This record gives sequence, C-alpha cells and structure tokens, in this order.
Amino acid sequence: MAKYSRLNKDDAAVLLIDHQVGLMSLVRDMEPDTYKNNVLAVADLAEYFNLPTILTTSFEDGPNGPLLPELIEKFPNAPLIARPGQINAWDNEDFVAAVKATGKKQLIIAGIVTEVCVAFPALAALEEEFEVFIVTDASGTFNQITRDAAWDRMSKAGAQLMSWFAVASELHRDWRNDVEGLGALFANHISDYANLMTQYNTVKGS
Amino acid sequence: MAKYSRLNKDDAAVLLIDHQVGLMSLVRDMEPDTYKNNVLAVADLAEYFNLPTILTTSFEDGPNGPLLPELIEKFPNAPLIARPGQINAWDNEDFVAAVKATGKKQLIIAGIVTEVCVAFPALAALEEEFEVFIVTDASGTFNQITRDAAWDRMSKAGAQLMSWFAVASELHRDWRNDVEGLGALFANHISDYANLMTQYNTVKGS
Amino acid sequence: MAKYSRLNKDDAAVLLIDHQVGLMSLVRDMEPDTYKNNVLAVADLAEYFNLPTILTTSFEDGPNGPLLPELIEKFPNAPLIARPGQINAWDNEDFVAAVKATGKKQLIIAGIVTEVCVAFPALAALEEEFEVFIVTDASGTFNQITRDAAWDRMSKAGAQLMSWFAVASELHRDWRNDVEGLGALFANHISDYANLMTQYNTVKGS
Amino acid sequence: MAKYSRLNKDDAAVLLIDHQVGLMSLVRDMEPDTYKNNVLAVADLAEYFNLPTILTTSFEDGPNGPLLPELIEKFPNAPLIARPGQINAWDNEDFVAAVKATGKKQLIIAGIVTEVCVAFPALAALEEEFEVFIVTDASGTFNQITRDAAWDRMSKAGAQLMSWFAVASELHRDWRNDVEGLGALFANHISDYANLMTQYNTVKGS
Amino acid sequence: MAKYSRLNKDDAAVLLIDHQVGLMSLVRDMEPDTYKNNVLAVADLAEYFNLPTILTTSFEDGPNGPLLPELIEKFPNAPLIARPGQINAWDNEDFVAAVKATGKKQLIIAGIVTEVCVAFPALAALEEEFEVFIVTDASGTFNQITRDAAWDRMSKAGAQLMSWFAVASELHRDWRNDVEGLGALFANHISDYANLMTQYNTVKGS
Amino acid sequence: MAKYSRLNKDDAAVLLIDHQVGLMSLVRDMEPDTYKNNVLAVADLAEYFNLPTILTTSFEDGPNGPLLPELIEKFPNAPLIARPGQINAWDNEDFVAAVKATGKKQLIIAGIVTEVCVAFPALAALEEEFEVFIVTDASGTFNQITRDAAWDRMSKAGAQLMSWFAVASELHRDWRNDVEGLGALFANHISDYANLMTQYNTVKGS
Amino acid sequence: MAKYSRLNKDDAAVLLIDHQVGLMSLVRDMEPDTYKNNVLAVADLAEYFNLPTILTTSFEDGPNGPLLPELIEKFPNAPLIARPGQINAWDNEDFVAAVKATGKKQLIIAGIVTEVCVAFPALAALEEEFEVFIVTDASGTFNQITRDAAWDRMSKAGAQLMSWFAVASELHRDWRNDVEGLGALFANHISDYANLMTQYNTVKGS
Amino acid sequence: MAKYSRLNKDDAAVLLIDHQVGLMSLVRDMEPDTYKNNVLAVADLAEYFNLPTILTTSFEDGPNGPLLPELIEKFPNAPLIARPGQINAWDNEDFVAAVKATGKKQLIIAGIVTEVCVAFPALAALEEEFEVFIVTDASGTFNQITRDAAWDRMSKAGAQLMSWFAVASELHRDWRNDVEGLGALFANHISDYANLMTQYNTVKGS
Repeated sequence: MAKYSRLNKDDAAVLLIDHQVGLMSLVRDMEPDTYKNNVLAVADLAEYFNLPTILTTSFEDGPNGPLLPELIEKFPNAPLIARPGQINAWDNEDFVAAVKATGKKQLIIAGIVTEVCVAFPALAALEEEFEVFIVTDASGTFNQITRDAAWDRMSKAGAQLMSWFAVASELHRDWRNDVEGLGALFANHISDYANLMTQYNTVKGS
Repeated sequence: MAKYSRLNKDDAAVLLIDHQVGLMSLVRDMEPDTYKNNVLAVADLAEYFNLPTILTTSFEDGPNGPLLPELIEKFPNAPLIARPGQINAWDNEDFVAAVKATGKKQLIIAGIVTEVCVAFPALAALEEEFEVFIVTDASGTFNQITRDAAWDRMSKAGAQLMSWFAVASELHRDWRNDVEGLGALFANHISDYANLMTQYNTVKGS
Repeated sequence: MAKYSRLNKDDAAVLLIDHQVGLMSLVRDMEPDTYKNNVLAVADLAEYFNLPTILTTSFEDGPNGPLLPELIEKFPNAPLIARPGQINAWDNEDFVAAVKATGKKQLIIAGIVTEVCVAFPALAALEEEFEVFIVTDASGTFNQITRDAAWDRMSKAGAQLMSWFAVASELHRDWRNDVEGLGALFANHISDYANLMTQYNTVKGS
Repeated sequence: MAKYSRLNKDDAAVLLIDHQVGLMSLVRDMEPDTYKNNVLAVADLAEYFNLPTILTTSFEDGPNGPLLPELIEKFPNAPLIARPGQINAWDNEDFVAAVKATGKKQLIIAGIVTEVCVAFPALAALEEEFEVFIVTDASGTFNQITRDAAWDRMSKAGAQLMSWFAVASELHRDWRNDVEGLGALFANHISDYANLMTQYNTVKGS
Repeated sequence: MAKYSRLNKDDAAVLLIDHQVGLMSLVRDMEPDTYKNNVLAVADLAEYFNLPTILTTSFEDGPNGPLLPELIEKFPNAPLIARPGQINAWDNEDFVAAVKATGKKQLIIAGIVTEVCVAFPALAALEEEFEVFIVTDASGTFNQITRDAAWDRMSKAGAQLMSWFAVASELHRDWRNDVEGLGALFANHISDYANLMTQYNTVKGS
Repeated sequence: MAKYSRLNKDDAAVLLIDHQVGLMSLVRDMEPDTYKNNVLAVADLAEYFNLPTILTTSFEDGPNGPLLPELIEKFPNAPLIARPGQINAWDNEDFVAAVKATGKKQLIIAGIVTEVCVAFPALAALEEEFEVFIVTDASGTFNQITRDAAWDRMSKAGAQLMSWFAVASELHRDWRNDVEGLGALFANHISDYANLMTQYNTVKGS
Repeated sequence: MAKYSRLNKDDAAVLLIDHQVGLMSLVRDMEPDTYKNNVLAVADLAEYFNLPTILTTSFEDGPNGPLLPELIEKFPNAPLIARPGQINAWDNEDFVAAVKATGKKQLIIAGIVTEVCVAFPALAALEEEFEVFIVTDASGTFNQITRDAAWDRMSKAGAQLMSWFAVASELHRDWRNDVEGLGALFANHISDYANLMTQYNTVKGS
Repeated sequence: MAKYSRLNKDDAAVLLIDHQVGLMSLVRDMEPDTYKNNVLAVADLAEYFNLPTILTTSFEDGPNGPLLPELIEKFPNAPLIARPGQINAWDNEDFVAAVKATGKKQLIIAGIVTEVCVAFPALAALEEEFEVFIVTDASGTFNQITRDAAWDRMSKAGAQLMSWFAVASELHRDWRNDVEGLGALFANHISDYANLMTQYNTVKGS
C-alpha cells in the first residue's frame, strides 16, 4: 500500500542550487558553520557514491557571488549552469537538459534559499514525475518560519524530506559495501562520530 | 501527477486583511518590527507586480484601530472594505464581490490574526475553488501554538504556505524581466541583501 | 472541492476532559498560568455560546485530583462523568451517551494530556463521523515533542486544530450578534485586547 | 471513514533499534538523561504488557558500542539481531523473520537515529502492510531539523507518531486492568506523577 | 561582612511606574498575560502588607494611555503623580516628595520599561542612599537584550533584583503571621500553587 | 589577591531545603526529571563524602507536601527541621543550631524555590561569615527570570554558584582517593558518562 | 554612595565602530533587520541630540566593506577614521585625537563585533577615565556566548550597558524639551510605538 | 582607575585542559561541531602567535579517552601532562611547573568541563596572581545552567571572559603585523568571513 520510495545509488542525481558565497549570508535558520558543513557533506556523499551532480548559480557575477570554492574544486567536470536570470532552475533549459541527461529519476536537491531555489525546481520536477528528495539540512533560508512554510509546500507535493545523513545511509544500504569509506564520510562531518571512532581505536589498539 | 500550482502575475490578487494598528499589538509570534517589515514587503510586491489588491478592516473605528498608514498611502485606489461586523471577510458580500471583480483565481492572503482573519477567508475561498497562497510571514498571531494550528488547518484544506520572498520570486520568474526593480524590492526589505549589493557595487566600482 | 468544515454554534458541543488539578502539574508545554487561562477561556466560550458541555475526569478521588474548581462552578448542571477506569473517555458508555444526547455533530475537545485524554476520544469520535475540533492551546502535555506527535496523529485522522480564539471567532460569525459579549470574552482572557479597549474608551471618552 | 487504528496489546510487538551506548552520544535533540529515561520507559512498558520485543544493533563490536546494559538485562531472552552491516534493519532477514515470528501486525518502533534506524525499517514495514507506531520520544537524532524531516517522511507514509506515555495508555485501555502496575510504570518514569502519588498517599494516610 | 539587606514591611514602600495600557504593548520580554499577572501580584502584595504605594504615569493623556484600571481601583487613595514630562520619575519633585513622605528607606520598584522608567529612578534613589529592590518580573521591556543590560546597570549600582514572590516572602517572614492571607495571595497569582491547595483540601476533607 | 575559596570535605555541610513533593510542581526552570536527578545527585554526594546533612521543610503537612521519599530514606538520621512557619530557614533557631552543631563553615545549599528558600538562608549565612556554595542545578524556581534575579542577589552577596558536578569534583580533589566511588556517583546521574564507561569496559574487556 | 553616572547631552560623544556592510553578515546574535534598525536608531539619536559623532572603519577597501551607506549620508562631516590596521580603534592616534577633540567625557559606543571592536576601545577609554556607555543592542556579534562574555568583561571594567532607547531617554530628560522630536525618533524605530501614536491620533481626531 | 588588562603575545601562554574525545560527548551547551571548531581555533591561534601551550588530560587511558588527535598533531612538542588523578590541574605539580616554566603571567585557558577542569585551575592561578583569560566558547559543559554558574564564579574571582576571536584579535593588535596570516586564521574557522573574502577577491579580480 504505502510504497517505500527508497533512494538507490544507481537511480539518483544530485542538484546543488545556488550555494553561492553571497547568498550564504542570507541563511539564518542554521548556524553558518553548521550549514556549510552540511553542504560539504552533501558534496562529499555525491562524490563518494559517484552520483551525477549538477551545479547551478544565479547571477554569480553579481552580489550573489561565486559558488563555494570547495564545490568548484570537488566537481571540476560537473555541469555548472550559470543561469542568466531564471529564478527557478527548472525554467532553464540547459539545467533541465543536464538533469535529464543523467538518466536518473531520483533527484536529491539542496540549495539556498529553501523556499525559492530549492522548492521551485522541486515542485517542477515532481510535476514531471521525478522522485524528489530534499536535503533539508543542506538547504538554508532566512528563518524558521520561511523554512517551515517551504517544507510544508514541498512535502504536500510529494517531496521527501531528508537529512544528508539519511541520504548517505539510504544510498549505502550495507556497511559491508565499504566500512572505511562511509566511516570516513561520517567522521569528517560529525565530530561526535569521529570521537567515537578515535576512542574505539585507541582502546582497541592499546 | 503532482501539479505544480504556481503563482502567475496575471492570475493573482492580493488580500490584506485587518493589518490594523491596534491588532498589530496582538501579534507575538514574530518581533514587531520584523513583522511590520514583512507586511510592507507584501504591499510593495503587490504594487511592484501591479496586482489587484483588496484591503479590509474589522471595526476600524474601535479598539482595533485604522489600517497601517503605509498601506493606506500605498493603495489609495484599492477597494477598502470596512466590514461592519463579519469576522470572516468572506462573509462580507462586498469583499467577495471585490475579489471576484478582479477576475483572478489565485489569492495571495496575509492578515492578523492568522487563525481567524487569514484562515477563515482562506478556507472559504478554497471551497469556491480559488487557489490560495498564504503569506505566512506577513500573517501574525498570538504565539507559535496558535500559528502552528492555523497553518495545519489551512494546509490540509489545500492552501499553499509561502513567504513574501517566495511569492515575489515565483511571480517574477526571471530576473531579466527587471533586475533593478526586483533588486530594489529585496534590498528594501532584507538588509543582508542590501549589504551584499552595497559591497558588490563598491568593489566593482573601485 | 475542499469543503470548509466550519464550526456552527447550533451544531457544536464542548468536551472538557480531565482538567484536574493534579494532572495540571504534568502540563509543561505551556506556562502554567497561560494554560489555565486558555482552559478557562474555553469554559467561558462554551457558556457564552450556550454550547452543551460535557465534563469528565479520570480517578478524581486519587492523585489526579478533582476538576479545576472554576469548571465545576461554571457548569453545575453539565454531565460530569467520573470514569471508573477507562483511559479513553470514548470507551465509557456514559460519556458517549452524554455526547450523543446533545445531538451535535461537531465536537470541540480540550483536555490533559493531549496525546491521550484528547487524542484518544478524538480519534474514536472521528471514526464515528463526528467532526472534531481540537482546542490546541487548552490541551496540555509533557513537552513539545509529545505535543507535536499528538497533533500529527489527530490531524492526519481528520481533526481540525484550532485555538480557543479561533473557535470563539468562528462560532460568533459576526460581531453584530453581540459586540459587548464577545468583547468581554476576549478582554477577560487576552490582556493585550483589554488594553486596546481601555485606551480606546479613554481617548474616546475624554 | 477515518479508521481509528488503535494499539492493541494482543496485536503489538516492540522493535528497539540500535540503542547502543556509542550512538547515544549522537542524540542531541533531547537532553541525554531525558532521552535515556524515555528509552527505558519503552522497555518497561514492553515488559509490563508482555509484548514480544526484538532488539537489534549495528556494529556493536565497533565504535557504536553495545546496547544499553539495562536493555540487555531486561530482555535476556529476546531476539537480539546483531546486524553484520545492513543499515536498515528490515534488510536483515533474521530481523524480519523475528518480527514475523511474533505474528503481530502492529509494530512499536524506537531507535537511534530517528531518520535512519527508525525511519528506514518503519517505511519498509509499512510497505508490507504492518501498522507502524513510532515512539517519538524514545527515538533520538542529531537536531530538530533532522527530527522534523524524519517525522514528516514517516507520517506521510502512514506511520503514527506517538509518545511512550501514549503507547502505554492506549495499550492499557482501562486502569481497572491493573491500577498498581500502570501507576508504578508512570511513577518510575515521570517524576511529576510520582510526586502526585506521594502527596496523595501522604495526605490520605495522615 | 556581607550585610543581608532584607526587606522589612515597616520600612518599605512600593513604586509602580508607568504601568499604562499603551506602554503594555511595548513589553515583549514576557508573555503579556504573564506580565500583567505579575504586575497585579505586586499590587496585591502592596495592599496585603499595607505598604505605602505611589503610582506615577508618563503622558497618560496621550498614546501611552491610562494606568491599568486594576491599579487605579486598588489604590484609590494612593498618590498618583502624572508627570508632565520628566522621563525619570525621580526628576519630578512631587514624586520624590511623595516617596520621602512615606518615611521609608526601602523602595520596591516595578515599571515599564525596565531600562528607563525603572532603572532611572532606581539609580537616582540609590544615589540618595535608599535601598532599592527591583521587582524584575513586574518590570517589562522590549526584549531580553534590553532587559539584561538594564539589570546589569542596576545591579552594579547596588539595586537588589527580586521577583514578586521573593518580595512577598521576605516581607511576610513567617507563615504564622497569617496563613490564609499569604496563601490566598499566592493562589491568586500562581495556578500551580492553587492546584496544590485544591488537591490538599479535597483529599484532606474527603 | 583573589582568594580561591575552595570546598573541602572536612569543612562542609549540606543543607537541603524544602525539596517537598508539592513544591516540586512549582519548579519550571528545568525539566522535572532533570531537576529531580540533580537533587538526588546532591543527596548522593552528601552521603558519599559523608558530609553532615540537614533537611528542612515548610508546612510539610499541608499542600507543600512531604519531602521527596528518596531523601527521607537516604538520611534517616539527619536532622529534619519541620519549620512551623518561618519562610527563611535561618529564622528557625533549631535549623541554625543544627547547622552550627556541625561545626562546618562551608555550607552547600540547594532547595525550592531558589529566590526564597535558597536565597534567604544563603544571605543570612553569609552575614554570619559562613562560606556559601549554591548548587544551582539542584535549586529550582518558576522560570528563568526569577532564577536569574536570585542568582544575581546571592552572587553579589558573596555566594559561590556551582553545579552538583562541580561540588563533587571540588570535594573529591583526586580520583585516586576512590576511582570506583566517584565514577559510580557520576555514572548514576550522568547517562553520557555511564555510556562512556560501558563502552570503555566493553572494548577493553573484549 | 552609589553615584548615578548619568548621560548628559552636553557631555557625550558617540563612537560608531566598524558598522561595515561586510561585517554586518557576521552578526548573528540578533536578527539582521532588527540589528540594522538599532544601529540607525543610534545614528538618529546622535543627530537628534547633536552629539559629536566619530565614525571609524577597519579595512574598508577589503572584505569588511564600506560603512553602511545610511551612516555615511547622515554624518557627512563627521570624522571618519579609516584605520590602516589597528584592531582596537583606541590604538589609532587619529581616532583618539578625534575623541579628545570633542572635549566630551561620556562616550556612547556601538560597533561590530562586540567583543573586539566595541570592547577593546571601551576598555582603553575606561582606563583613561572616560565614562563609557555601551549601546548593547547596536553592537552585534557571532552568538550569545560571545556576547555574554563581552558584556561581562566590559561591565566589570566599569562600562555601563544600555540600549539605544535608554540612551535616548536619559539624554532627553524631559519630554517637554521636544515632544514631537523624541516621539518621531521613537516612532521611526519602534513600530509598536508608532502604532500607539497612530491609534491615539485617529481616535482623538475622530 | 580601571586598568585595561590586555593580552600581550609576549606575556601569554595557552592551557588546553582535558579536550579528550570521551569528554567531548559531555559537552551539551554548544553544538558539537561548533564546539570542536572553536577548540581547534584556539589551537590554531596558539600556534599562529607562537604561544607556549600546555596540554593536560585526565585519565586518558580510561573512558575519558585520548586528546583530540588534532591537538596531538599540532603540538607534538608541547608538554602533555597526563594527570594521574588530580581533578584540578593546578593540583598537579608537573602542570604548575610547566606553566611556570613558560615565564608568562597571562594564562589563556580552555577545557572540558567549564565548571571543573577550567574553573578550578583558573581560580587557583588567580590566587597566585596570574592574569586569567577564559576562552568561553572553547570551554564546554553539560548545559547553560552549569555554564552560567561557572562563568559567574570565575568572573567574580577576576578571570576575564573572552571568545577565541577576541583572544586572537587582542593578541594581534594590528592587521599590518600580518594580514594574510590572521585572515587565514579567521577564514578557516568562521565561514561567514571566508565567504566575504571569496566574494571580495572574486569581484576585485574580475
């Protein structure tokens, strides 16, 4: 009855929308360093699972600024669609073409700001029968009111709300696929997890 | 499948309900100056996109007080329905007539207080098959409990919860329609955005 | 399409469940005086709109304690079902009989604690095709987590989440039915509103 | 119409997933002692109602650590599936077999972390037409954002969100089934309730 | 060494400054009904302990509005100095004369807003070697930042920060002076306390 | 210059004031179970360090209720002064006599409510040149405003604000005095600490 | 004994330190628009009371960006010391010279960030026997921890912590000096106050 | 009068106390990743300003765990005193000897937990006439109550409360000493600052 619509690493692509250094200053619903950590975690998981990744920016030559340099470095060969004006990335033909070129039906989306740059393409993609997974903690906005409204709109339209940790865990399925790799991904972005590992290895090895 | 019900500037009207100076003192789920800023942002976007706008008040000659003066000034020719007693604006024939006279099927609604002056007409309009978009951050109420309850009731009935920034962005569609105008709208109501623009222009021009 | 299921004073009954002095100490998701004020506001609106009101308690001779004295005083003739053990009031035949004896199909429910004494009868009543309106701010529980879970469960089952102010406003429909009465109800439970009235009357009368 | 899907002690099993001492340090959406108290309350109610209970762990020989010792002590004969790698317990055949061996169709689930170890098996079980009840306050995660996203995903798929207190109350149905036993369960995990009982007994007995 | 500067009912006077209905809307560091309850508790304790009480207002014929009607009713014979313009009440000779006419050296002060109408006369009175006790929870202001700054300034100058409950308790010294009276004062303003009393009396009397 | 006034187990006594089951319901500045855990931690440390401990209650035969049963059990031979009416325990001669009979000059004080039952005797004891250490997290009150005011008043008079963990740590001085005992004290009241120990022992022992 | 060190408009100068558009994005202990409003309120009061005002910036040609344009516009003739590198403005001779040239001994200071650009010159000025008044709500920093630490350091050194509203009120002394002017200052920066005035004038004039 | 006791890079040493991976899990007054970032920022500034740095641990072979690996790596030659049992590091002769061997009189202290491992040696060092500067945001504890109490105790004894950003800024004095170096330190630990720099360099260079 209730179909479990589950992320599958062979079916998924990642869309990183407008993580630009100027727009980062608008994000006030999370602490700035926490937020950046989450964004980089999504980037790392995209790379780790080898998911096709598409970058896009809005007016990167203006006040919104360039993409986070870490994203540019990590995805030198990813499509980076600098939109000439479309607010909804899905209104940009190149962007949609890039998405469709991946051949994937599951879209993992994060961006700034949640209610616009994330919600608009999410809603448009749902209309075209993509499965949409929002990385909520890598999507930032002005405050909790605007976040809650955005989540409600996307969820009602069928998007699944997740965290980067849930996305990585659902894609990985089984630790035995690679204990080291997933452990490193977690330890690099969750200090509590790194502490557990350090303590374990210390006691074990002593 | 999931239809993207999207704001369109040719299809939308704005309903500003009971933004009266007395009632403003009841709003405690946002900081007062933040809230007023959001209300004026909705007014500015209504004017900017040239959307038909309808004002209404409840007992404006009594304790509830007159409309915010800024709204009166901005919309000197808009219908202003001073309701003689109806709590739900949709129970007032003149109000409904004014709404229907706009010929628009998308209603952007904000007001005080959220669970009454916003929710009641929203629910009534949904029943008559209007599309309803609530400007959550320009709708204020007593506390977060009453807000959350109001949102849940409206959302379940089909209203879309948005912020003024999302409304403006969805209406504008493409920055190229007018970069200056939308930029000014944002800079006037989001100081972080104004700062980005000032810094950019300063460095660019230096 | 989206039917506006609206409270109607001829169709509604009020169920006050387990507002007992001992259980009041368990309520920690609102300030205690704020919470009590909300409960008394529901009692006042029930009396004001002359709605059939049913009281019930759980083990009132034990640690849970007697009903708030103000409720006993206000509803000396209302059915007060002291349940001998049923946790869900709807499992008590006398309670259900009392509800059905009112002949009303709209049930306005508040109680302690939200996820049990409110949610259980609400869910049972919905199953029997009553319309259910939860007075969220007159329903208290241990913390925000338990509240949020309870709201989600009730809302999904079809209950409408409201506040006492929304309930009173929806029942009244039009201030002209009685300006004095509704104004007094509001002023007695919303100090901000009382202040607006005092200032207005002072300036007007000066 | 709205079926009241109600917990029934003859139909329910309890799944406790990954309440491991290392993972406990990741839980930051509740105070640590509050959280542990809630987990032990679920264990106590499982024992009290004699519900089949299944324990599972993820990498218990590594950084995640062993189960909380109190759980091991309380359920010495319960199936304890130490998963060799599957992140979603439902991907582990032994776990699913143990669940199915109970013959129950109502699953009460709690675990760490909410969006992964709880949500994944919950979604999988819903797909197989189990009724799923999440014990929200015995399920912990990194922060409120990840919690809210997890709840939304599970709720939309049909899981019912509850608290341990609601679970115990719905299972018990009627205090007369055992006043002492349920009272003790509550007093042991809710200090406010213990205080009410002490005061009552003192005054009564004086 | 550390002299315990203790309130004494023979030595104390109460100064209620600018608790005007308009100014009440500026108070945002407490919930409005909580705040009003605290103000009325101070009034009740002043009456209960028969302390000389002085009222003062700022521009009561303008936007600031009249005193809370409950204060006017309770203190019909108290000096009420309507200041013609002085912001610091201590700059008003009539006010200072009224204070000095009480012959008391301990001043219990509350008012709106904390950092101005409370802090300024408090600092002035300290300079004249009065002992000053601020009723912190009956003194309101715009937000927590302005409150914290005001407290720091007053505390460093020697004012003692108290709550109305502490003031009443320190003045009363011993319950045996009047159990009924103090109990009523507490029960009228602390619902938790009223609940304890109701439960006790019920069980005792049963 | 700045004398380090340090707790010394040979010089210290513990005063537990009015931790009565009725008064517990007034404590709203901490979660109730967290608060009770802290109170019991103070009791455990008093026993562990074998500190003379004095209990006192206010009207224990009335609404305030009896002491927490756990305290009565733990200190069967401690002086328990049931004050006949004095609000400030230091106004009770038996209490002061009991304190002085200990021969200690360092007083570790906790109680309900902070601004009255803790602050008043603390201020009185400071005046008599005792050194006073407040266990802030075992002292509860109505809300954060009343807490902050109480702390300011006590701190300015010379009391040292501590937590139960700091008190235990300062008394113990060196783990080598008893690793097991202090570890058990911590593990019993800090679940995070218990988890660290369980994990350590598990890995070490494996 | 406790000297009331009171702001006096003939003795005071205003120092606005590093309110630069880039640095504004670092301020996270207040909402950005609230913070900007407070800064502009200080600017307006400086102008209104005709206080000598000194502006300074740190690296305004770099990432920190230029001063808020509104400040530049308002104080075209004020000294604006662009510090070539000194972090503490008081280490810059031109800045100190400008301060001393005002001949004022009371310094009203605000800036970004509180613990550095405000605290350092405040501490230095106190050492030179200036009286220092910090405008706490026009001084911003990263979070509440850094704010609290900064306040404690400055307060202990003798700085007085105020809000812009307290500064304006203390400088003005008496409304009769200019009702219109002060009213306008307040109405322009406190929407609640503007609402009170609008309502009053409307009712009065009707 | 008020001596500005200012950090000076020639006079200061850094004490990092018990930043052990097990103890990290006890820190609940900051987000874990935020806290770790602050600790590493202190380490980086110690290295950057070439300050003598002393590390110490408590029972590092037990549940408390080893130091954060990043600290061990950064300070391979720093004294690392593994205390055999002393809770207050100042009770360990080797630690005090190491501190005194630096010849510095200004001690910059951070550690876990604030009220014990930081406060105890801070109070002891103050007694020996060291100047003590607490890095508040690199010192973590169980919750805000324990933090506030610890701060109050240390501040009253003369410790100065700072943040790592304030420490670095006060030590550096003048950007011209090294713009690149300090900029890198800030950019590495404050993402908002990094964003400002990226945007500036991008626009400047374009």
